[in-house]
Amino acid sequence: MTWLITGGAGYIGAHVARAMTGAGERVLVLDDLSAGVPARLPADVPLVRGSSLDGGLLKRVLAEHAVTGVVHLAARKQVAESVAQPTRYYQENLGGLATLLEAVAEAGVERFLFSSSAAVYGNPDVELITEETPCAPVNPYGETKLAGEWLVRAAGQAHGISTVCLRYFNVAGAATPELADTGVFNIVPMVFDRLTRGEAPRIFGDDYPTPDGTCVRDYIHVSDLAEAHLAAARHLSGQSGDLTVNIGRGEGVSVREMVTVIGEVTGDRRPAVVEPRRPGDAPVSVASAARAAGTLGWSARRGVREMIDSAWRGWLLHHH
Amino acid sequence: MTWLITGGAGYIGAHVARAMTGAGERVLVLDDLSAGVPARLPADVPLVRGSSLDGGLLKRVLAEHAVTGVVHLAARKQVAESVAQPTRYYQENLGGLATLLEAVAEAGVERFLFSSSAAVYGNPDVELITEETPCAPVNPYGETKLAGEWLVRAAGQAHGISTVCLRYFNVAGAATPELADTGVFNIVPMVFDRLTRGEAPRIFGDDYPTPDGTCVRDYIHVSDLAEAHLAAARHLSGQSGDLTVNIGRGEGVSVREMVTVIGEVTGDRRPAVVEPRRPGDAPVSVASAARAAGTLGWSARRGVREMIDSAWRGWLLHHH
Repeated sequence: MTWLITGGAGYIGAHVARAMTGAGERVLVLDDLSAGVPARLPADVPLVRGSSLDGGLLKRVLAEHAVTGVVHLAARKQVAESVAQPTRYYQENLGGLATLLEAVAEAGVERFLFSSSAAVYGNPDVELITEETPCAPVNPYGETKLAGEWLVRAAGQAHGISTVCLRYFNVAGAATPELADTGVFNIVPMVFDRLTRGEAPRIFGDDYPTPDGTCVRDYIHVSDLAEAHLAAARHLSGQSGDLTVNIGRGEGVSVREMVTVIGEVTGDRRPAVVEPRRPGDAPVSVASAARAAGTLGWSARRGVREMIDSAWRGWLLHHH
Repeated sequence: MTWLITGGAGYIGAHVARAMTGAGERVLVLDDLSAGVPARLPADVPLVRGSSLDGGLLKRVLAEHAVTGVVHLAARKQVAESVAQPTRYYQENLGGLATLLEAVAEAGVERFLFSSSAAVYGNPDVELITEETPCAPVNPYGETKLAGEWLVRAAGQAHGISTVCLRYFNVAGAATPELADTGVFNIVPMVFDRLTRGEAPRIFGDDYPTPDGTCVRDYIHVSDLAEAHLAAARHLSGQSGDLTVNIGRGEGVSVREMVTVIGEVTGDRRPAVVEPRRPGDAPVSVASAARAAGTLGWSARRGVREMIDSAWRGWLLHHH
């Protein structure tokens, strides 16, 4: 097997490349470096600079490297940006996926792993989100992920490609400081950013119907997530058909709990300020992790403390 | 107002162009002529040959003709083809829509009408399908229409464009023989085609839980559908926000009833042969027509006999 990882120089992609090469898989990365960083990649992983919107390049890469499986992570992923620029998200996320799947079908590649998101569910009013929970995305980012899943399954059926869609919950942490997320769009780096600037962390709403009143999320360590990709890739090598699976810990952690652990790790324990609720935030979003355990034989092993510890070491490296 | 109708030389598009110009609206057509026929258009309607995937062309056309509203009908629309070539449907239907909406936003066009389909609903188990019935498309054609609606609404919100999505039920008939559907993908021309070749009409399944055991659909005359577009265009000129509305008669007609009327109209009354059910066919699919009446002040006026009469005159013209 030779695996092509699109977006493989990104935060998650580099962790996936590391986990797969570490387990003996042959890996190749395609990345347009709009957010990716070549230095994140293991030295023996070839990097092709380019976009999954470039059909000609994709054909050449799939043929020249005799690719037998694709892990498609390249995508735009900021919710607020997707609300402001929806056509861009449809063009890049869905257009890139369609172009890639065309090249994959033409090259006879038979295994395809798609990076999806808990955003496909929107804000369902359930305690645990299973893969059967109805999908109702509430922003263009989530819409492109749900329509992307549909396309992956349809192309799989039409062209005999085995497919897996992984629905990530809230990803945090880093395997090494060098691989840490350098953006400030997720809660952990957002709080780091405020602390670094001498500002108190913010909590948006503390009157939700949850144990401490703040929103509850399912956080997963990016190294666990990377191992889920390895398990999914191996599942694809042995099975045909399609599989859609939540990737979370199956445990909820509140925003206030996160802020408390961040205070312990950073030593900056200034109290959070409570601001009004943000429109569109679900009170609770926690994965059922049962299908991942049953089908992939995979479960998350790392806890919140390890996520924040490793993320903080990365933050200090990148923002000292 | 100047309205650009994409796909305006197609079967439905030409009826829309005719209804809008007939009511005094200024109209311009963009059509790549992959299925469209220039002779269908009224003589005073300018035709630009090109695709809604061509962003540069769209920009020029919107500017040069000072377009103030768009009626977007250009799309691939065959369910079986969408199952065989899903990436093509996503590229052309969604990619074309995204490219068009980008050009529309940039040109400051503030009114957009999107041709959607009852296919967004899939096969819901309800007597009357309202616009609140959950959407669960069962093929890539319907998926591109549902994701298309999402994109239309998101782009409307992001760029201040008023939008209407019209969910067509089963379209049949013709305003004149020249404008008739020349394809054989819908029930009426499919039966005509068999009769013309001396074969009996086919009914797929007569053991459904319906009054006569055959599937029930909501058929709408294409001239009524065209008038719904005119009503929607005028609604867009007066209102902001987004509106999604079923376009059907709100009455069910069974396949056996259709075959009987076709026998009466054509004079070829040979009995239908009953074949096994086709996978994926819903027993009943009938629109609630209430929202269209309430918001657009529009209701269908023409019945099944008129649909088949007019379709048959068109068939004789095109297939004599």
